[in-house]
Amino acid sequence: MQPIDLLIEADHVLPVRPARVVLADHAVAVDDGRIVALLPRVEALARYAPREHVRLGESVLLPGLVNAHTHNPMTLMRGLADDLPLKPWLEDHIWPAEGRVMGVDYVRDGVELAIAEMLRGGTTACNENYFFPDVIGETCRRHGFRVTVGIPVIEFPSAWARTRDEYFERGLAVHDAFRGDPLVSTSLAPHAPYTVGDESFERIRMLRDQLGIPVHLHLHETRGEVEDARRASGMRPFQRMQALGLVDASLVAVHMTELSDAEIEHCAAAGVTVVHCPESNLKLASGFCPVAKLLAAGVTVALGTDGCASNNDLDLIGEMRTAALLAKGVAGDARAVDAHAAIEMATIAGARAMGLADAIGSIEPGKQADLVAIRLDEIEAQPWYDVAAQIVYAGHRRQVSDVWIAGRRRLAGGELPDMDLESIKARARRWRQRIAAR
Amino acid sequence: MQPIDLLIEADHVLPVRPARVVLADHAVAVDDGRIVALLPRVEALARYAPREHVRLGESVLLPGLVNAHTHNPMTLMRGLADDLPLKPWLEDHIWPAEGRVMGVDYVRDGVELAIAEMLRGGTTACNENYFFPDVIGETCRRHGFRVTVGIPVIEFPSAWARTRDEYFERGLAVHDAFRGDPLVSTSLAPHAPYTVGDESFERIRMLRDQLGIPVHLHLHETRGEVEDARRASGMRPFQRMQALGLVDASLVAVHMTELSDAEIEHCAAAGVTVVHCPESNLKLASGFCPVAKLLAAGVTVALGTDGCASNNDLDLIGEMRTAALLAKGVAGDARAVDAHAAIEMATIAGARAMGLADAIGSIEPGKQADLVAIRLDEIEAQPWYDVAAQIVYAGHRRQVSDVWIAGRRRLAGGELPDMDLESIKARARRWRQRIAAR
Repeated sequence: MQPIDLLIEADHVLPVRPARVVLADHAVAVDDGRIVALLPRVEALARYAPREHVRLGESVLLPGLVNAHTHNPMTLMRGLADDLPLKPWLEDHIWPAEGRVMGVDYVRDGVELAIAEMLRGGTTACNENYFFPDVIGETCRRHGFRVTVGIPVIEFPSAWARTRDEYFERGLAVHDAFRGDPLVSTSLAPHAPYTVGDESFERIRMLRDQLGIPVHLHLHETRGEVEDARRASGMRPFQRMQALGLVDASLVAVHMTELSDAEIEHCAAAGVTVVHCPESNLKLASGFCPVAKLLAAGVTVALGTDGCASNNDLDLIGEMRTAALLAKGVAGDARAVDAHAAIEMATIAGARAMGLADAIGSIEPGKQADLVAIRLDEIEAQPWYDVAAQIVYAGHRRQVSDVWIAGRRRLAGGELPDMDLESIKARARRWRQRIAAR
Repeated sequence: MQPIDLLIEADHVLPVRPARVVLADHAVAVDDGRIVALLPRVEALARYAPREHVRLGESVLLPGLVNAHTHNPMTLMRGLADDLPLKPWLEDHIWPAEGRVMGVDYVRDGVELAIAEMLRGGTTACNENYFFPDVIGETCRRHGFRVTVGIPVIEFPSAWARTRDEYFERGLAVHDAFRGDPLVSTSLAPHAPYTVGDESFERIRMLRDQLGIPVHLHLHETRGEVEDARRASGMRPFQRMQALGLVDASLVAVHMTELSDAEIEHCAAAGVTVVHCPESNLKLASGFCPVAKLLAAGVTVALGTDGCASNNDLDLIGEMRTAALLAKGVAGDARAVDAHAAIEMATIAGARAMGLADAIGSIEPGKQADLVAIRLDEIEAQPWYDVAAQIVYAGHRRQVSDVWIAGRRRLAGGELPDMDLESIKARARRWRQRIAAR
């Protein structure tokens, strides 16, 4: 009998790779934070002597969900300003509020609140895009949560950095600080074509080539953005990114609601990863990302919640449902983005967006043991005919019972053993007072 | 001190009428199943001597949610066939499955499962549209759940009735059986213009005038339905309903994805109630109901989940979110269907769709005490800035703690005191075997 750290049995395992498979009565063997094997339950019991043995019943075990685009400190601004379009929402509400609170404490408390919500909803990793990436990385590391922190680049001063040079200097220091960290990686995160100049983009391209990390960029969020750019410069932002040499396999392009067929082909040919944020796009009336067309062209499409101020939650199960439903409506085809496709967006595609395609996103030997268990024995899940469809179309986040990250159990029976929820809630209430003050 | 049955205190009360109001530190006084008063907490404590006293903390008390279009027995077909358009979904999957199981036991077990799910999600009433309305009504009455059962009319034989005359005879017997029932009312439920002939519609018009009950009809669910009718008869189905005298204030028109501006104006002038089923419309790629236009024209728009086979849940909190988000995307306007508008759709507008506008749908003295409490102290609800927005954009159904129907507590602290969940689940699993058998 082979000694291992952990064996998890489940009635159903949905490994994502191989694609579109649901295995009955299987078990996942974990050792030293990694997946050692995925095999039939009876074989596992005969082969392994686990130090910890978890028997899930009428549940499905999945790779941990990956939120491919978030601004987690903004969880403290959940519902600060609703039912407004992007421009007044940002300029009249979000930016002034951020001006009042931006700093180490706000970022740390917001990220802790977000981690609690994400763990309870089955999310094990996120692709972060905000100021103070050092604080974000440290907070995630402290709670055992996996993150890719974006190195922010934007052409205006903030509490994080005053000048372009300072953005790059501080950002590179963050990259160095987390080099080799098992849970924290980095990306380059220029805010958007309309807030970042060509000189910065050129430095980003050089750094990308040097460091080999993704470029995480808001792109074509609205038709207005595309039209404004064309009026001003004669070029669509995507075209400008092409001219700057940024459209390649390292580009993680978020939103992409406004795309020509030719641009979709360019994305496919270049290996761009698109991050779709359906609830944010709907809430801000930003437009509809042509997800079915992108997938048909062979583009990798991941899923993000965006920040809580434009969603207003970090619920990837809900986001999968919205993505699967909306894609059908937009394509006029009920076959578009089926349940398995939605689950791939929230797992393996998100892994790629984080620059971690080889490390997470599926239950395969050698990968990190980032796992989530979803109960199917609740009244809301009965009866079920197809496990994947059940999760996407009827699942809700409180059916998530257990979460492991790198083999460590971070949610156990719906409870968070390592987090002080009362303290997190008390701090959230205090920030509400400061943020709401006008 | 005035003796009453029940006093419920809450940090927040959202009464729906008056519109767009959230009251802090209020209480609802209930006696004999009805709301006696809604008043500040301190006044209530000075005035009433309640036999039962419930102190909700950081919660919001709302009128019970109303599901304005459901086929609840189909909860047993949750996820039977997904990612398919309406026609093959119905003809190749749903109808054959119904043929195998239709009858008293299937309808009763499906409705019990649905009631458990609805109560746990804050729904206190539903507008039902299915065969065996007698069984549906009796099952709801037994569990203290409020329902308007549709009298089904369709031009093909079923286990419920073999001929047109039998549909009307059995339906009228159901109407008579529930006359005066405090929880069960009736409507006329011709299936759709493409499955019901003019002769039946004429009888329905006469019965409507005689009985004074709503006509609950699937109408303009897809563009295909409208185009087929126009090719066959030269008339759009809405036009045919006008010619038959059915477009008036008793018409409850479900789906309405395909509407001209003139038809929207006719709906407004006639006082038609539209029921929007956003998740079903998306899932079957049926089209987009122009909700913002309908509301701007003054049309009452209620909210329904449709059956669980095309949703796949009975979660009205989720449906409010989908409705509010989707309306913004479709209208291209982030101001469309704000949080209060979505809550009105799921309460007072639904009351009207059920023919119960004077009895339920708002927290007003004299109305039935159908109430729901939603917790705001969970991590996923923190922080909150606007209570209405919090429920619609960040709320999830497991935050529902308590539900009262006609003053009786049917959900208490998230538990169902009067239902045997294990028995309901066991029966759901048995039906799954029979339904899945090919």
